[in-house]
Amino acid sequence: MTNLLDFYFDFISPYSYLAYKRLKKINLDNKININYKPILLGGLHKLGGITAPAFNQRKMKNMKNDCKLVATKNDIEFQWNAKFPINTLTLMRGYIAIDKKLKNNFFDICFDYYWKKNVDISDMKVLSKILKLSKLDEKEFFLKTQDEKIKDELKKLTNDAFQNDIFGAPTFVVNNKIFWGQDRLDYALDEYNFK
Amino acid sequence: MTNLLDFYFDFISPYSYLAYKRLKKINLDNKININYKPILLGGLHKLGGITAPAFNQRKMKNMKNDCKLVATKNDIEFQWNAKFPINTLTLMRGYIAIDKKLKNNFFDICFDYYWKKNVDISDMKVLSKILKLSKLDEKEFFLKTQDEKIKDELKKLTNDAFQNDIFGAPTFVVNNKIFWGQDRLDYALDEYNFK
Repeated sequence: MTNLLDFYFDFISPYSYLAYKRLKKINLDNKININYKPILLGGLHKLGGITAPAFNQRKMKNMKNDCKLVATKNDIEFQWNAKFPINTLTLMRGYIAIDKKLKNNFFDICFDYYWKKNVDISDMKVLSKILKLSKLDEKEFFLKTQDEKIKDELKKLTNDAFQNDIFGAPTFVVNNKIFWGQDRLDYALDEYNFK
Repeated sequence: MTNLLDFYFDFISPYSYLAYKRLKKINLDNKININYKPILLGGLHKLGGITAPAFNQRKMKNMKNDCKLVATKNDIEFQWNAKFPINTLTLMRGYIAIDKKLKNNFFDICFDYYWKKNVDISDMKVLSKILKLSKLDEKEFFLKTQDEKIKDELKKLTNDAFQNDIFGAPTFVVNNKIFWGQDRLDYALDEYNFK
């Protein structure tokens, strides 16, 4: 049995950012075999008949406070994004499309720009800068994000997540067990048997 | 400033039970000044436009697993209730109506019967037994739960919670700061400055 931690994410999700930063600190020696699984969170919510906290006044207010608390408690740099929520469709397609070796950079920069630097990563000028920093060719990136195969792949990944009982992000899956939310990262690591 | 921890609950909420049990262990010396605030969770959700996890297939499935995980992790006896969800209106009205000195017993027994012993506490025979064990007069209890003043009080407590940005249970309030969910008990205790 290969020990593997699936990490379902969307750049739109502040708790995915927080979980990622926590996991990064815990995984300093890179012993945890993490499989990042991109999904379109809006699409997943729609499939599951779920109203995202962003669209409920009280839940939204709580989430803004709560993310700051979690960030402070875990010593993570964090700023609520003034342009939340944005459409992450192109970004998530892009993550799927780009070369495996370049994924990590793009992933890091997208999350940091959106949830650390309070920048609108759906803005084309910003995205151009992110692509440059990620050493990605802009023309090729946009061609690929319009490619039917890539579009279908994001749809498939989101549908597959839904079929596997996943309904939010971040979600961790270890040994076919589902752990929802950054609050369950420790439980997922227990299941992974990471000490 | 009086140090106080408000604890909003409904017997229907498994996470309220788990938070209560965790708090009980932490508060062995009774140093934490806890103010239990009964609300009707179904009513609160309705006011807030929130669909409870109980009414979403994937969220419900996750909640059942998750409660067991949290219980195991915290060494709390727990069984998912086969009759979940039930209508807790009479129970919550009853909690408000009964004498202050007898509230604790009733509170304990209701939570234990529902979330530890897997018993349907909305069943009249069961409720009779709970009232006997709580040293409460059955006739008086049912008269009071039909009293307009008590009905209005539960409505008012639920409405007040809603007006104060509360949208779920358990919710802890310390120094006017809101902490939602059993996962935030530690944060609430930090704010309370309980070491």
